[in-house]
Amino acid sequence: MKIKVDRQLLLTQLSYISKAIPTKTPLPVLTGIKFVVAEEGLYLTTSDSDITINTFLPLEVNDTQVIQIDSVGSIIIPGKYFIEIIKKLNGDNIEISTFEGNYVTIKCGRSEYTLNGFDVTQYPNIELIKHDNPIHLEKQLLKTIIRQTVFSTANSENRPVLTGVNFRYDADELMCVATDSFRLSKKLVPLNKLHEPFNIVIPGRSLIELSKILDDSHESVDVYLANNQILFQIGNISFQSRLLDGIYPETKEFVPTTFGIEIKANYHELYNAFDRAALIARDQVSNVVKLNILPEEGKLLITANSPEVGKVEEEVQVEMISGGELRIACSALFIIDALKAINNSDVIMSFNGDMRPFILRDQYDETTIQLIVPVRME
Amino acid sequence: MKIKVDRQLLLTQLSYISKAIPTKTPLPVLTGIKFVVAEEGLYLTTSDSDITINTFLPLEVNDTQVIQIDSVGSIIIPGKYFIEIIKKLNGDNIEISTFEGNYVTIKCGRSEYTLNGFDVTQYPNIELIKHDNPIHLEKQLLKTIIRQTVFSTANSENRPVLTGVNFRYDADELMCVATDSFRLSKKLVPLNKLHEPFNIVIPGRSLIELSKILDDSHESVDVYLANNQILFQIGNISFQSRLLDGIYPETKEFVPTTFGIEIKANYHELYNAFDRAALIARDQVSNVVKLNILPEEGKLLITANSPEVGKVEEEVQVEMISGGELRIACSALFIIDALKAINNSDVIMSFNGDMRPFILRDQYDETTIQLIVPVRME
Repeated sequence: MKIKVDRQLLLTQLSYISKAIPTKTPLPVLTGIKFVVAEEGLYLTTSDSDITINTFLPLEVNDTQVIQIDSVGSIIIPGKYFIEIIKKLNGDNIEISTFEGNYVTIKCGRSEYTLNGFDVTQYPNIELIKHDNPIHLEKQLLKTIIRQTVFSTANSENRPVLTGVNFRYDADELMCVATDSFRLSKKLVPLNKLHEPFNIVIPGRSLIELSKILDDSHESVDVYLANNQILFQIGNISFQSRLLDGIYPETKEFVPTTFGIEIKANYHELYNAFDRAALIARDQVSNVVKLNILPEEGKLLITANSPEVGKVEEEVQVEMISGGELRIACSALFIIDALKAINNSDVIMSFNGDMRPFILRDQYDETTIQLIVPVRME
Repeated sequence: MKIKVDRQLLLTQLSYISKAIPTKTPLPVLTGIKFVVAEEGLYLTTSDSDITINTFLPLEVNDTQVIQIDSVGSIIIPGKYFIEIIKKLNGDNIEISTFEGNYVTIKCGRSEYTLNGFDVTQYPNIELIKHDNPIHLEKQLLKTIIRQTVFSTANSENRPVLTGVNFRYDADELMCVATDSFRLSKKLVPLNKLHEPFNIVIPGRSLIELSKILDDSHESVDVYLANNQILFQIGNISFQSRLLDGIYPETKEFVPTTFGIEIKANYHELYNAFDRAALIARDQVSNVVKLNILPEEGKLLITANSPEVGKVEEEVQVEMISGGELRIACSALFIIDALKAINNSDVIMSFNGDMRPFILRDQYDETTIQLIVPVRME
């Protein structure tokens, strides 16, 4: 195997596949990049067992030759070293060749590296599950779904299924739900009849890594489902993740649809007030802040108290209040996470008393809700 | 005590004094900021026992009132919380007042914090050692001295005196030396007869923190020495550090002055070549690279070899070579640190055989040298 390849384009490919190089693995060959030179171009693959990423760089990009092939072939190259070397080399083109005994030589300008590789036969055979009937999703929409839900997945492995986001499609609607049982994020996406119904759980970490590859464009991502795997095809990038086993809990009855008390407030005022209150609240185990809705004064009071540090009181003028006075306590960090996922000018908060879950949402978006379970008032 | 103070100016003062707030201390009161409101303005003090920083903000800055005093007084305010709160508050002016029981209230816009403070009598009395006969040093020069020497101080406490930089003044020259006994940095500064001779060791960490406060201007810093302490007066900032006990070793005979082999090479080519070789070298315990000077070819070859990862060869065309061929081995990281401290277009490297220390220096600056002890070739 011997090729010359454009350094910048190679770096772009490496930035995609780097996300599936494991730092620790019982299978050392997985710390490598599967580097395959074929007649039509360069294929790179990495896998940490959960996620597999594959990219393809053709010989020509925008009518410019970017790869010159002397001979085809394949090898596993140590991933971390290879990426750092390609970053630091100084030149537009890099020559990469293999020689007997699984060595790979990287030449550029007056630099020459020889790395110990692995034979390609040692790399596990990971099949990509492409078939004829993908679901089409906009990149931007997929990225938004992830941003608005994934932070509510559970960190602990107590109930593994809760570490993922539930994607459930039926008839003409895709419902995406994440919950760690203390809060819940839910997004409904209207979708034309596109696929057989499905009900899957995608690991949160896979979605976070996928999100880093997605830009905000409206281009389409092709999504394939099979064999307990999901494959996202984004241009020349294939991103495949295993799905989580287990039945995702029904959450419908958990999410209230009618509310006794509602307020509307400016996004930035609300965010900054909770952010400042969190400075004191975070000294407490569950970051507790107290909310006090005062309809007569048109105010939301936010207070936090730490016996060790001190206390804080923040006052937010609300734009609309319906219902009576309310005192309720919850985690300041949950509210901040929920507000980050909203990111609009006005926020509606809807309550049903001090011991019932409450909801935050964008005033213009009824399809996305952020639910938080309150804690008992002292 | 009750004042209103300009938020931006207060933040600037806090950025200076934050450098002496300890994260861990057996004396909890030291995690606080000594906040003293006097008729003439605001004094802030922090101390981690080694370093004490004191700033003064007058009532007026550039003819604009920046502090409005309702009543004078003093308190110790929890440092970390206070700084984060002042950063996050939203408004130009902040009201700070104390009330009975060592509480301090911070008000700004619709935010109000109350923090638990300490009585000012609990704060250790740290005397600043100003007197009538300071040494004047340019800020920029002091910053350069620190940058070019401090990285060679020892990290380990085996010989505590080596964790500092030796400042020795005699007649008309200031000599600054740092060494961890594997490498040595030395800078000579011509200074007019300004002071009695001195020979002190300033802790490396103190110099690193001091450096963050110094800008690159030519303004003067007043330096005071007394009672095993050193005080740097930078405008309204007093930065005091304890000195290290013990006799700093004589290093004169350690530094060669004549050399058998010299090369001159472009700074960036040299830096990048060693930086790339370090990728492989750092896999070895002492980051060993081998240098091979080839006078007939006008080349410096740099190689590194890691049985696990692979090998690298870098070739640097040198601009001047005198003397014969040489093969020598040393730490790639020591060379990179030394080059960072040079930062000029051309570098001179001077050798006396493969087992003798060698020197790197800026071609235009004979007063600053970076010495490195080689390791035995395999």
